[in-house]
Amino acid sequence: MNSVVVGVDLGGTNVKTAVVARNGRLLGKDSRPTRATEGPDVVIDTMVASVELALEHAGVDPSDLRAVGVGAPGPMNWRTGVVFSPPNLPGWSDVPLAELMSERLSVPVFVDNDANVACWGEFWSGAGREVDSLVCLTLGTGVGGGIVVGGRLVRGIDGTAAEIGHICVMRDGRACNCGAKGCLEAYASVTGMVRTALEGIDAGRPTMLTRMCGGDPALIDGKMISDALQQGDEFAAWVMRETAIWLGTGIGSLINLLNPEMVVLCGGMIAAGDVLFDPIRETALAQSFEVPGQRAQIVPAGLGADSGVIGAAGCALQRYEEEH
Amino acid sequence: MNSVVVGVDLGGTNVKTAVVARNGRLLGKDSRPTRATEGPDVVIDTMVASVELALEHAGVDPSDLRAVGVGAPGPMNWRTGVVFSPPNLPGWSDVPLAELMSERLSVPVFVDNDANVACWGEFWSGAGREVDSLVCLTLGTGVGGGIVVGGRLVRGIDGTAAEIGHICVMRDGRACNCGAKGCLEAYASVTGMVRTALEGIDAGRPTMLTRMCGGDPALIDGKMISDALQQGDEFAAWVMRETAIWLGTGIGSLINLLNPEMVVLCGGMIAAGDVLFDPIRETALAQSFEVPGQRAQIVPAGLGADSGVIGAAGCALQRYEEEH
Repeated sequence: MNSVVVGVDLGGTNVKTAVVARNGRLLGKDSRPTRATEGPDVVIDTMVASVELALEHAGVDPSDLRAVGVGAPGPMNWRTGVVFSPPNLPGWSDVPLAELMSERLSVPVFVDNDANVACWGEFWSGAGREVDSLVCLTLGTGVGGGIVVGGRLVRGIDGTAAEIGHICVMRDGRACNCGAKGCLEAYASVTGMVRTALEGIDAGRPTMLTRMCGGDPALIDGKMISDALQQGDEFAAWVMRETAIWLGTGIGSLINLLNPEMVVLCGGMIAAGDVLFDPIRETALAQSFEVPGQRAQIVPAGLGADSGVIGAAGCALQRYEEEH
Repeated sequence: MNSVVVGVDLGGTNVKTAVVARNGRLLGKDSRPTRATEGPDVVIDTMVASVELALEHAGVDPSDLRAVGVGAPGPMNWRTGVVFSPPNLPGWSDVPLAELMSERLSVPVFVDNDANVACWGEFWSGAGREVDSLVCLTLGTGVGGGIVVGGRLVRGIDGTAAEIGHICVMRDGRACNCGAKGCLEAYASVTGMVRTALEGIDAGRPTMLTRMCGGDPALIDGKMISDALQQGDEFAAWVMRETAIWLGTGIGSLINLLNPEMVVLCGGMIAAGDVLFDPIRETALAQSFEVPGQRAQIVPAGLGADSGVIGAAGCALQRYEEEH
């Protein structure tokens, strides 16, 4: 039977869709603007259209579709597929996303946290496909995460587990968007990296960023820091290293806590390569016990930008198979 | 069948033993000095004698004994029951403890990390007997821990998981015995609490501890701080509150990471009661998301000082049943 599953990555900007075989092979894709400002009905229309077009691109008959998985920004009830009110999806309030999409597509639809599906994607057919346990960090505006232990996602009793961005790495540290202080996200996200840069500039440290932003530090973003780094700016290198040390500190804690086989990093920031990974690995080793520290490989995502969309398909496949 | 299991808590000072029914009911106990300085052979003789006497105390025929579980200080290989070289068991080096005790007692013997067995005891028949997931912290000279997810201990690929004392709560913070910096244990263990007191005294803060220690701060210990607290010393209250805030900070991270139903605290320190638990709960709530923060009950051990010895029996029972 040539049955397939489809994964949908519901972002605030774009909807990405992938048709995936049961063995994890990617068969076809689609991508289009989310049109988030037009509200949930339009977004759901967009997703349904994207699923149908992706199947067409893949040359798959819609009758071969078994299930659809959606990776959505939290918070949500992953069991019922109701999405509460994600900050980057205006007008959403307790939307029964799984039910609404299932009615339209006539197959079971499973909704999961976007960081959990990215983690599952890496576990199922990415960097972690040979291991049984891993921790995954998604580095972007925030720091998301997923945890696999014994071949299963650790979801927690309310489905809120694996908020890796919100472990405290500095008591009474930076205020985090979540309301707590000193969270990993406040230092190690792209936003946190920019804050580190702004603090350094405020402290009078010289950098070409001052010129690049035309004297308006509010314009500094991750891309600009990355550009300055490429051009040999020492301050930008320090900012990247600081970000990596914070990440390594958090990862060292995760290694001591979970003794995983692998730590996978996802998100645009990982394009920095060794400049980022070397101090992460060095710090994580210094901050963890020898046996688990040596054990845990710290690696970039194997699926690049597709961890989420492939993982959404994989999560749906696993949940479909458990129910059938 | 009236079959029983026996748990042994192998400490550096005392060996404690308990005979436990399959339903978790305690049937009889024994306790005696470990005689750790006399080396592994004497310690093993001590444990065997303790198991035999505990059975006698419980009025259980030795033929009804199915398995023995030992909670031992790490590091170790929990699968093979080989104990490497625990700091508080001099002369131990790769001792095949499970095998040696099994030969003497003619039943399967299972060895586990002492913090894991305490966690399992609380899960099996203590504070957490109604829940499916919990995190357990044992507060003593160090901070140990155990994690149960989906009804199973999270052990990690090498069996080193749940080193809750060694999550970093303060980048570049206090040097920890493990070689890392800013570990929870460096602040929230009894030793960490004493360090907090010494730092405060060094900074010139007034306290009756200065008098109580006869001018020699090296004599200050957890008991003395607790006594000063009882006598209304404000500095001792501050020390306890600081310790609780560090604990709450670490627990907040664990709640965000694992979304457990319960967090159980074990160890002599919990006798402080609300003075300790109130600021722990307050800090953990402030440092975690609302849903998991409200969910996780933070409670004292239900088995008091017996979490370890009952848990060692429970771990052995579970492993015996999985093998038979």
